[in-house]
Amino acid sequence: MPKTGINIVMKQVYFDNAATTQIRNEVVDAMAEVMKSNYGNASSSHSFGRSAKAIIEKSRKIIAHYFNASAGEIVFTSGGTEADNLVLRSAVRDLGVKHIITTKIEHHGVLHTVEAIVKDYNITVSYLNIDKNGEIDYKQLKTLLETNTNVLVSLMHVNNEIGNVLDLKRVADLCKANKALFHSDAVQSVGHYKLDLQDIQIDYLAASAHKFHGPKGVGFAFIRKNSGLRASILGGEQERGLRAGTESVHNIVGLEKALNIAYANFDEEVKYIKTIKAYFINKISQDIPGVVFNGNSGDLAKSTYTLVNVCLPVAPNKSGMLLFQLDLKGIACSRGSACQSGSPKKSHVLTEILDAAALEKPSIRFSFSIYSTKEEVDYVVDVLKEFITK
Amino acid sequence: MPKTGINIVMKQVYFDNAATTQIRNEVVDAMAEVMKSNYGNASSSHSFGRSAKAIIEKSRKIIAHYFNASAGEIVFTSGGTEADNLVLRSAVRDLGVKHIITTKIEHHGVLHTVEAIVKDYNITVSYLNIDKNGEIDYKQLKTLLETNTNVLVSLMHVNNEIGNVLDLKRVADLCKANKALFHSDAVQSVGHYKLDLQDIQIDYLAASAHKFHGPKGVGFAFIRKNSGLRASILGGEQERGLRAGTESVHNIVGLEKALNIAYANFDEEVKYIKTIKAYFINKISQDIPGVVFNGNSGDLAKSTYTLVNVCLPVAPNKSGMLLFQLDLKGIACSRGSACQSGSPKKSHVLTEILDAAALEKPSIRFSFSIYSTKEEVDYVVDVLKEFITK
Ligand SMILES: Cc1ncc(COP(=O)(O)O)c(C=O)c1O
Ligand SMILES: Cc1ncc(COP(=O)(O)O)c(C=O)c1O
Repeated sequence: MPKTGINIVMKQVYFDNAATTQIRNEVVDAMAEVMKSNYGNASSSHSFGRSAKAIIEKSRKIIAHYFNASAGEIVFTSGGTEADNLVLRSAVRDLGVKHIITTKIEHHGVLHTVEAIVKDYNITVSYLNIDKNGEIDYKQLKTLLETNTNVLVSLMHVNNEIGNVLDLKRVADLCKANKALFHSDAVQSVGHYKLDLQDIQIDYLAASAHKFHGPKGVGFAFIRKNSGLRASILGGEQERGLRAGTESVHNIVGLEKALNIAYANFDEEVKYIKTIKAYFINKISQDIPGVVFNGNSGDLAKSTYTLVNVCLPVAPNKSGMLLFQLDLKGIACSRGSACQSGSPKKSHVLTEILDAAALEKPSIRFSFSIYSTKEEVDYVVDVLKEFITK
Repeated sequence: MPKTGINIVMKQVYFDNAATTQIRNEVVDAMAEVMKSNYGNASSSHSFGRSAKAIIEKSRKIIAHYFNASAGEIVFTSGGTEADNLVLRSAVRDLGVKHIITTKIEHHGVLHTVEAIVKDYNITVSYLNIDKNGEIDYKQLKTLLETNTNVLVSLMHVNNEIGNVLDLKRVADLCKANKALFHSDAVQSVGHYKLDLQDIQIDYLAASAHKFHGPKGVGFAFIRKNSGLRASILGGEQERGLRAGTESVHNIVGLEKALNIAYANFDEEVKYIKTIKAYFINKISQDIPGVVFNGNSGDLAKSTYTLVNVCLPVAPNKSGMLLFQLDLKGIACSRGSACQSGSPKKSHVLTEILDAAALEKPSIRFSFSIYSTKEEVDYVVDVLKEFITK
């Protein structure tokens, strides 16, 4: 290569995999292939339509299989947010739910939807107490379930900011025992955890492909058989009447393909990412005394292996510069969730669990994937250390 | 090539472009490229996020430009159906619309949504009279507008079954003069017609990429500035708060690319497709005496150049076999819209305009694109003729 002057290669570290992930090349290729070879509308009865329909139904079956569910229980949506909206709104509108139990540390896809529904239908909402580690109060949940009827519980499986993992089966059993409906936003866990939905008797679940190296703009709701739910987007009879609109065949294929790869290499990939997270915890604990792990994210047994959320000992006057500095150094990470990272608002999750002093300091979420490396961890912690000590 | 036994090459003719279109290779390539090179979440504030955001905003600006609209007036959705739902529901919920004026020959994305909203909010709906050609009663519209307040008019630009083209400007002016809101489902016209939304003072419009050789599962609502509309899918602050959920960057890029190509080669492509339609009309009129064109679809001046809908002189006992036979011959076309073509239900559009005798006979929609050829027309009409006369 001829030298053509100054050559700056910017180092780039992507540690924001809880916001979104790099789509796998095999997924892109599968999507391109289906777009080029199959362009029928899955609702058309001729051969082009039937072939599109067959592709979607095969994907649905494969996806269902991973969760020990039946194909009819998978409803494709335009993403996790739409899946949350679909389930929550219909449960209240069509099933007569009168009381929602949730928390203030849910994703906005649940939080804002619940707020709107509670107003629209004039029903009650109870927010569970959350302790300083972000753990829900199971006793309170039990009491609420025992003293109320027509209840829908909505609790996320893996918290997208602090990584806490809910005991889905425990909550599902509690709900079952008290005849309450149970929805979980599992956007951060599908593709990263294995879920047996025969064992876990949950009613609904939301998932999104772009969190596990699939395409953006596609997800699904698991909706248990004979749910009685109805569509919020009305029109055609697609998705067995639960979601109108011409199906995004290539996006559905991308979702399936991404899930296939995730679950094919599951143990190996989980182990690898765990190593990265453990390495990050060790390294930052050694190099930056005074670092605090928010929620359970410092505890590998109690939080997802994909992320940590650290509160950093940064002087108040320098605090505002941190994210900016990290960005300058090519490091992608997040304060709160992606949909807030551009705004000056504080994380609604951390606001619930941290005390005032801790909230003054900057907290950052670093989230990992199979593409993350130990060298990147070294680089990131070095940059943080330099920023803090300089 | 070695002979390996019988070699059947199935002839395939795709004359169902009103259901969906073949995605252009350049569109697929652009989508694959953006998926491989830009995977950031457009809501993230770091460089990966900003780059995804820049891509989306560039697409928005380009798209807006074609309609003489501003970028802020384009809201990306998962398709035409969602765009219709978003606009109609919010206009009633958030703007206090008390009366909807529409017709019974709208697409189900409008029809079913209006039915639900009218119930949910206990408001009034008036269905305009439709004559036997599928034309609306402009006088009745004017009277209704003059005698009612808080009105939303929803009338589609190009009818997807019979191809009738509404005089958008005339209706927009009528609505403006009477302070009514005006929404148009323009799913069959965007990419096929040029619309100047400064000239046409419409309030809202719905479009879908897969009708003009773009990807399925993406569309947009044009929502005029300061509309006061609000989101129906709640969560993040995407699309300026009008539509939550991580943006499908590749789908948006696909939409833009498809529109670019459509409008770059506009005159030439329109002229070509017109030739195909004219040829079809001539050929079938000559070869099949007794054929009747439904709606205005036989009149090139009053219907879209992309489709014809023909009522065929088929004996009642053979009628049920027609679509099946066409499919066997590799011909993709449609009875009613795609979302009905699998069902035994009669077209709700034709039911409104045809008399009982005509409804007994099979009606078929043939819809064309730049990929259609005169040879294909010959083949299709020959197959029809053979079926009818044999
Ligand atoms: C007139 C009309 N409106 C709305 C739609 C729905 O658009 P989409 O399939 O993108 O939801 C279609 C076609 O499916 C249509 O022809
Ligand atoms: C926990 C959680 N729920 C829901 C969502 C929304 O999913 P989507 O972006 O596919 O709408 C996200 C991420 O964006 C998330 O992290």
